[in-house]
Amino acid sequence: MIDKLAIIGVGLIGGSLARALRATGWVREIVGYGRSIGNIAEAVRLGVIDYAATNPMEAVRDADVVVIAVPVGSIGPVLERIVPALTDRTVITDVGSVKAPIVAAARAALGTRFPAFVPGHPIAGTERSGAAAADPDLFRGARVVLTPEPDTAAAALERVRALWLAAGATVVTLAATTHDRVLAVGSHLPHVLAYTLMDMIVRLDEHRAIVECAGGSLRDGTRVAASDPALWRDIFLTNRADLAALVRAYQNDLGAFADAIEHGDEDWLMETLARAQRARQGF
Amino acid sequence: MIDKLAIIGVGLIGGSLARALRATGWVREIVGYGRSIGNIAEAVRLGVIDYAATNPMEAVRDADVVVIAVPVGSIGPVLERIVPALTDRTVITDVGSVKAPIVAAARAALGTRFPAFVPGHPIAGTERSGAAAADPDLFRGARVVLTPEPDTAAAALERVRALWLAAGATVVTLAATTHDRVLAVGSHLPHVLAYTLMDMIVRLDEHRAIVECAGGSLRDGTRVAASDPALWRDIFLTNRADLAALVRAYQNDLGAFADAIEHGDEDWLMETLARAQRARQGF
Repeated sequence: MIDKLAIIGVGLIGGSLARALRATGWVREIVGYGRSIGNIAEAVRLGVIDYAATNPMEAVRDADVVVIAVPVGSIGPVLERIVPALTDRTVITDVGSVKAPIVAAARAALGTRFPAFVPGHPIAGTERSGAAAADPDLFRGARVVLTPEPDTAAAALERVRALWLAAGATVVTLAATTHDRVLAVGSHLPHVLAYTLMDMIVRLDEHRAIVECAGGSLRDGTRVAASDPALWRDIFLTNRADLAALVRAYQNDLGAFADAIEHGDEDWLMETLARAQRARQGF
Repeated sequence: MIDKLAIIGVGLIGGSLARALRATGWVREIVGYGRSIGNIAEAVRLGVIDYAATNPMEAVRDADVVVIAVPVGSIGPVLERIVPALTDRTVITDVGSVKAPIVAAARAALGTRFPAFVPGHPIAGTERSGAAAADPDLFRGARVVLTPEPDTAAAALERVRALWLAAGATVVTLAATTHDRVLAVGSHLPHVLAYTLMDMIVRLDEHRAIVECAGGSLRDGTRVAASDPALWRDIFLTNRADLAALVRAYQNDLGAFADAIEHGDEDWLMETLARAQRARQGF
């Protein structure tokens, strides 16, 4: 149970967590803060949060748990702003899609309060954004990765784990660097591919005919290209080392594919497609 | 109405068309032929077709309409085998995902009977295959592209158009070369990307963790990698000129993306992601 929950950034993820915890009765009071006045007013109007704070400091005052649900590039700055209002009993967590750089930023921003910070990443979401998209069932059956450091307080970790379990998620822990490598493949790269494909198509003369005659493969393969650009720019840049190497490796694999098509290499294609099919069927 | 419909290749597409036309009462009798004894027996058992022919010649004898629903690499050979059994009133169509090479193969195989051939491509399907996957609603609301040549018989074209309308589809006509260029982008390239991504992942040490922590982006972006390898190898090779150029162009765009990530080019990323987002939202 949480007496007072503060959510900084009441978008799809922050808003959905608020709704999920309220639906389970796991929280008494939810205060929100966000930079967009329109979005935060909508969050209050829809009952996603109980009331809006006028600044992050005010939001976290007396909160038991603070959830930072802003784009990854803003998490460090937000932590710097709220640190004076934190008490010994405040637990802080985030929902950023990249972990090692955020851990470093949190260590710098929080100083001696760093053990109260539990780095987290719920693997859930849709291409929609904003408080209006908040869905109390978004985390049901979803996986949440927590990446505690050796000096993370055990009590803080348990509190954040309990919060996500209450929201219906499964919780696993990973080292932050493992998380970033794994998510670069399982989420960041697929977003790069979708954005690149959609951007390629819109620049082609025949893009209307292409979209009209599109198969399900194009629809599925570009779905996440409708995601928030600022959010994903931040993720790509924050995880740049892992991601850039991966994009290069993929580019290379694609070159081998193009070679096989050009040379009519039936055996290479059959072997590669069959291996991919088996892997995907075992997903 | 069709008195006798012959389906050569009773897989997902051929089987679904049979089920759709039977459901509307648009066909009296459906004969099927397929190379896999197990699949064709299943098609009879499930009532997808009325009976199985022992060879393609026997299947098309006395048929009003012949639908060739085999992988694109086999369409030419099948046409060569059935041509002796065709009569003046037989209309032939295919469902191949590539059109210009099939038109050329059909012209060579059918000779003076070529005007009775209506090249077609229903843009529908799933990653599943075989008669057991046949779905009478597969074409409902789907788009079917017909690519008639200047010497295609108008009556044949109308008969095939009526058949697809009866199955619930929308029918458009395009030049075969336009179809192949447009579908290379809207379907063949997304399949190449999905297969390449899945194959890259399965070769990584951490592939179990990657799949366990996969976001919806990876699931959606690799869904079609579960598709039939032989079918897609044929499509890739048959449309190789359009497709190889496109894979190279995509590879190039991906290089620009990797550059922007490596150089921390926020403006380039924001502009590109926002353009892709707008395009995808207008899909």
